[in-house]
Amino acid sequence: MRSSVFEIETLTVPGGTESILRGGRHLFGKLPEAFHGVRRIGVLGWGPQGRAQAKNLRDSLQGTGITVAVGLRPGSSSADDARAHGFTEADGTLGDWLAVAAESDLVVLLIADAALAAHHEEIFAVLRPGATIGLSHGFLLGHLRATGGDFPAGHPVIAVCPKGMGDSVRRLYEQGATVNGAGINASVAVHADPDGHAGDRALAWSVALGSPYTFETTLQSEYRSDIVGERGILLGAVHGLVETLYRQFLLDGADPVTAYERSTEVVTGPLARTISREGLPAVRNAVADTDLFDRAYTAAYGPAREIVAEIYDEVADGTELRSVILAGARLATRPMTPIGGSPMWAQGDAVRARRRSPAHPDLPIDPLTAGLFVATMVAQVDEFADRGHAWSEIVNESIIEAVDLLLPYMHARDVAYMVDNCSVTARLGTRRWGPRFQAAYEQIALPAVAAPADPKLIDAFEQNPVHAALAAAAELRPSVDISV
Amino acid sequence: MRSSVFEIETLTVPGGTESILRGGRHLFGKLPEAFHGVRRIGVLGWGPQGRAQAKNLRDSLQGTGITVAVGLRPGSSSADDARAHGFTEADGTLGDWLAVAAESDLVVLLIADAALAAHHEEIFAVLRPGATIGLSHGFLLGHLRATGGDFPAGHPVIAVCPKGMGDSVRRLYEQGATVNGAGINASVAVHADPDGHAGDRALAWSVALGSPYTFETTLQSEYRSDIVGERGILLGAVHGLVETLYRQFLLDGADPVTAYERSTEVVTGPLARTISREGLPAVRNAVADTDLFDRAYTAAYGPAREIVAEIYDEVADGTELRSVILAGARLATRPMTPIGGSPMWAQGDAVRARRRSPAHPDLPIDPLTAGLFVATMVAQVDEFADRGHAWSEIVNESIIEAVDLLLPYMHARDVAYMVDNCSVTARLGTRRWGPRFQAAYEQIALPAVAAPADPKLIDAFEQNPVHAALAAAAELRPSVDISV
Repeated sequence: MRSSVFEIETLTVPGGTESILRGGRHLFGKLPEAFHGVRRIGVLGWGPQGRAQAKNLRDSLQGTGITVAVGLRPGSSSADDARAHGFTEADGTLGDWLAVAAESDLVVLLIADAALAAHHEEIFAVLRPGATIGLSHGFLLGHLRATGGDFPAGHPVIAVCPKGMGDSVRRLYEQGATVNGAGINASVAVHADPDGHAGDRALAWSVALGSPYTFETTLQSEYRSDIVGERGILLGAVHGLVETLYRQFLLDGADPVTAYERSTEVVTGPLARTISREGLPAVRNAVADTDLFDRAYTAAYGPAREIVAEIYDEVADGTELRSVILAGARLATRPMTPIGGSPMWAQGDAVRARRRSPAHPDLPIDPLTAGLFVATMVAQVDEFADRGHAWSEIVNESIIEAVDLLLPYMHARDVAYMVDNCSVTARLGTRRWGPRFQAAYEQIALPAVAAPADPKLIDAFEQNPVHAALAAAAELRPSVDISV
Repeated sequence: MRSSVFEIETLTVPGGTESILRGGRHLFGKLPEAFHGVRRIGVLGWGPQGRAQAKNLRDSLQGTGITVAVGLRPGSSSADDARAHGFTEADGTLGDWLAVAAESDLVVLLIADAALAAHHEEIFAVLRPGATIGLSHGFLLGHLRATGGDFPAGHPVIAVCPKGMGDSVRRLYEQGATVNGAGINASVAVHADPDGHAGDRALAWSVALGSPYTFETTLQSEYRSDIVGERGILLGAVHGLVETLYRQFLLDGADPVTAYERSTEVVTGPLARTISREGLPAVRNAVADTDLFDRAYTAAYGPAREIVAEIYDEVADGTELRSVILAGARLATRPMTPIGGSPMWAQGDAVRARRRSPAHPDLPIDPLTAGLFVATMVAQVDEFADRGHAWSEIVNESIIEAVDLLLPYMHARDVAYMVDNCSVTARLGTRRWGPRFQAAYEQIALPAVAAPADPKLIDAFEQNPVHAALAAAAELRPSVDISV
């Protein structure tokens, strides 16, 4: 990562260093220079990510003369909402997506994956010469590879990929107005750089979104870690885990509220908080029954790693993407049934009410829950490390996004609500892989918890280089929790 | 289906008729004529299917002058077992697979899917001119399509696909020595017929295996229904269902043995028997609480159909096959963990002991279990019908194979044992899709059982054309149950 505008820092990680950019509002003045000739940014799409990015970019670029316009499909039902947020046809900041694409110097593609797969060629066809193509994840690269297509020649192609949901990208940016540096970490990738300024534009975009910590990746690495991560510990595995544990605690005699607390509430609350503030080994130190934690960790690591490896293979091969595209055709006639009707979620309100009661003591971290969760998180970390991902990407995609963003969000609502309300690609993936994790926990891991812990595996956990990588990344964390 | 040797019959099915061949030992005398010039049959592979087919073919062809030889990979660990079953180098009926392929007029490819994918070109290269290529399922066609390959020109390509495991193919054939017509139904496909005799050879092979009821299909239809069926009601769905129900009955207060009985034991015992002998509507008439059956059926049909449609899409697209091939590489270094350690299977011995006790009354069919199971079976039937499969294929691949073969086998052992011991392709598929069914039952269907039944859905069940198709097929069923 190099820049002629921003000061790149070096992060010490296990086995070497990585270049990163520390963000903040004090850098906004440098944005016009870093954007190198971009006078107009077109954001196509008004989903959570499109809305958040359009607003953050507009706010950060206020007074610079760089305008931000929103482009929507003809007849889009989002037009009214975009107008309500101040993007209007009258001042030229709202228009047809192809018109906006045709007149922008940086075209940010934030339409849904299926729409992107269907319409990218029309968009490419109207771009002005040398306009920069901007992505926020690697889906389109995967799709182009699967279909034998490519990005059009002569255009810079860059990606800025916030490691969190669109709502969080906006929420933390707003918190950043008072706490400089509050925002969502992002990775940047330069896929094509015909004019030599693509890297600076990507960094400018990331800074303008409010990213406190920008690290470098490639579109392919980003795509793989993003899609695998959401199917793994970020969404799929956590959903499979809490469904398993809720029933297990019920079977062990717990009442429903307690079963919910020992499973979901522990994961989204004290477990996430402990990892966020003190790292993974602190969880093992925090539980009352270390032996049970170790046995649960031992029982779950292998089966979880097996599934993460399977997900990785299928994502890297393009198989997972094909299944998403096949689902798109089915979903046109038969929408997905929500999973929020599962009995455990009926306990959520009671648990959250109890949480707010002053008389209710702090929930201890259940050692069984913690052992299974941490084993799965480390299995994903180890698989990513074996597949050659950079440490910044590994810790952001496997740990920081989970404990600082998604789990707090689930803590406020619940896990199934989040699954039923996330992107189609993530929702499909969670429904596809969550049950695989559940079956592995139920049928393989839980029966094995009775066996003694494997000292070699526990030792490997304690010595895992991820702890140093996470500590290094944590120093870049703004001193603010997301308010959900 | 036409034959110059055998008498083809017409089966009346909903919407028309299908040609079928009724088998039996009285037809063995016609085999030399029907095999049209085949003097030597080479069976490559000694898995359960290879062993059963080699032995059945040899027995049926005794005294005809047609020899059956077994071909094994160099260093195969199966050589001793093949010798113990009377295939020996000394009399020229056991040899290297390429040598056996090179000297046979019909080469039956029964090596494992992964080996077939890796080595089919070597085998094709040594075939004598005009030798017939024989398959027992459509995997190789799927693989050739996925990789841009094809069968070699000038060779007849036929398939005979017994609708049951290899062990059953042998077991029922042996029972057929005393009960003419006992055997496993089979589909036949003629994929290439350069000499005009491919169809008769396929029928001869099917009769020689002992098939009492041979129906026609294509390699593509066979492949799809076979792979979808084992992921659906034959293996994957039934595994997901009993895991769900066992826990649910425990949560409702049942002791473990009763929970096992109301889930697995009901499905593999009285439910399978009732469907086998009296058809699907008889299950609804047999349960004590018809309203609960109807509500369970209503709750499960939609979610089950959704998953069957997804499986079908992925099998038809080749996605499922890619995942099997990707798994092959992983399994080389990391074998699959068995799922037989799940707590419910520890109850199996107690349940089977109780079953044999004269004091133990006949188990009633649990209405919840029955409603979920029958809904899933009908969902698969309806999906196959919508996708254009022939009724013989639908009822064999969705009902007869289940209730007459697989469920009785699971009744003797258990469901997880069967999953852990079936073919790699089936085992991978069951582990991939069984948890999807489980999650759908737990998270979507069971919570919906409280709602009233949908009279339209129940009416559609009662009027479903599958009942007539199954009754027509049942007339071809020999009057013998498989002994397991």
